[in-house]
Amino acid sequence: MRYGMMDAEDGLGRWPVSCEMPVQWGDMDALNHVNHTVFIRWMETARMHYFVACGFTDQVEEQGIGPILAGLKVDYHAPVTFPDTMTIHTTITRMGGASFDMGYRITSSARDGETVATAIVHGVAFDYAAGKPTRIPDDLRARVLGIEASAP
Amino acid sequence: MRYGMMDAEDGLGRWPVSCEMPVQWGDMDALNHVNHTVFIRWMETARMHYFVACGFTDQVEEQGIGPILAGLKVDYHAPVTFPDTMTIHTTITRMGGASFDMGYRITSSARDGETVATAIVHGVAFDYAAGKPTRIPDDLRARVLGIEASAP
Amino acid sequence: MRYGMMDAEDGLGRWPVSCEMPVQWGDMDALNHVNHTVFIRWMETARMHYFVACGFTDQVEEQGIGPILAGLKVDYHAPVTFPDTMTIHTTITRMGGASFDMGYRITSSARDGETVATAIVHGVAFDYAAGKPTRIPDDLRARVLGIEASAP
Amino acid sequence: MRYGMMDAEDGLGRWPVSCEMPVQWGDMDALNHVNHTVFIRWMETARMHYFVACGFTDQVEEQGIGPILAGLKVDYHAPVTFPDTMTIHTTITRMGGASFDMGYRITSSARDGETVATAIVHGVAFDYAAGKPTRIPDDLRARVLGIEASAP
Repeated sequence: MRYGMMDAEDGLGRWPVSCEMPVQWGDMDALNHVNHTVFIRWMETARMHYFVACGFTDQVEEQGIGPILAGLKVDYHAPVTFPDTMTIHTTITRMGGASFDMGYRITSSARDGETVATAIVHGVAFDYAAGKPTRIPDDLRARVLGIEASAP
Repeated sequence: MRYGMMDAEDGLGRWPVSCEMPVQWGDMDALNHVNHTVFIRWMETARMHYFVACGFTDQVEEQGIGPILAGLKVDYHAPVTFPDTMTIHTTITRMGGASFDMGYRITSSARDGETVATAIVHGVAFDYAAGKPTRIPDDLRARVLGIEASAP
Repeated sequence: MRYGMMDAEDGLGRWPVSCEMPVQWGDMDALNHVNHTVFIRWMETARMHYFVACGFTDQVEEQGIGPILAGLKVDYHAPVTFPDTMTIHTTITRMGGASFDMGYRITSSARDGETVATAIVHGVAFDYAAGKPTRIPDDLRARVLGIEASAP
Repeated sequence: MRYGMMDAEDGLGRWPVSCEMPVQWGDMDALNHVNHTVFIRWMETARMHYFVACGFTDQVEEQGIGPILAGLKVDYHAPVTFPDTMTIHTTITRMGGASFDMGYRITSSARDGETVATAIVHGVAFDYAAGKPTRIPDDLRARVLGIEASAP
């Protein structure tokens, strides 16, 4: 899997979805920083909010097609400690035939909005009955473009 | 450890501290409900907010005395799913010589404030240098009573 | 929920099931000890091994009856650090009409088998279609007694 | 951060360190697969075993120099379910002035040793007193080469 091309396509990459997450005390590990896996858990929650918004999760029940996580790449820029409130921003930057890329940016309230981590997730539309990747349905593509267009 | 006596002492058990926590998608397990360990992680965060407020955490650095978790008892009343926002309420119900009890109540926003879990944690004031339990310092007792008295 | 009666019934409480679990570095929290929620995660794994062995999990698909966690009580006896290997022992100590109790004992290899935590879980047989507790099926009771009898 | 160059340098990339980890039931999420963050937690444990072996963790106390996680890239190849036992293999593939790369490969026992995930972690030697990256100490480099040379 390559992560070279980060430029968003036309109408994509506009960061329309975000959610807030308070740091939990138990998110910190023995180095007294929030463990690096917690950032990835936060990104997953933001991703699910995006999937609910664009109907990707409904697609599973209606058409047997759902998103699968093929890979991720995270860059850690600054440590996070308890207490703090994070904002996790996400956007879809690319939709290929069966695959798509999502960008993530996590900012810290205690650090005045500083970006503490950035990431890319590489996903695939999967046909559960056929057991293989499938083309992202056109109505889903349209809804993703609608969500991206709704970004302030 | 016994949990028989739940009645709060004079001036205690007034539920002065609470925090909100959004459910994360990954908090759910293979039964499609938030895993039961996550409730206990939430309670820990509420407890730390209380400890910061009453200065129990500062006590560790200043006097080498800190709280230790000796036991807990949780009753689960209703399942929780993503998305939802929980409120975790906590109160100190008893302060003995070296030990104390804290009550917890977790309510669900998606269930219109219904209580989904209740719990008791039994803690001990520990002298790290001596390696054994120690009397809860008087100034800490006073601050706990002050926090409980501040409950609405 | 009461946890007063811990004596095992005839043929129960014989500790037939156990599993080993290496401590992970990330199990430790900012106090440099394994976080107290991790012990409860380990107990859940041992419980599932017991449920697989006695066919409680198959019961869900065949009869729509499955186990529900109603409550738990944990006593923490000693801290655990990385690296270590834990053994989680479990046994069913009581089977009522619809409810049952399971005991847990966690021992540490690094502490030469010392018990670091003990616990009780209170469970209920639940009829998912009816949406309420139901009588523990007789064949399941028989298999539980068989597993307990197999303890060395 | 780039992950383009994966070829190991002379004497590196020989996969000398591995550890086994049983899957826990609670590692599975609402999709009935082990959650993708759990793979990263396993890799962290393997990394710490490597750091203990080469003395990188002692370096922190003795010289105030420790490893910092700058980024990671994970490719997921196959889903994992409970029960299973994973083997997490790790190797250092590159040591630059202050930075280093570690490779990871996770194999599944239930899948007859199939590789279910591969990853790269990009780390930096950090001088805590100075608050900035520092050159990897020569004795640490020598111990890393010794560990890699010990691979079967």
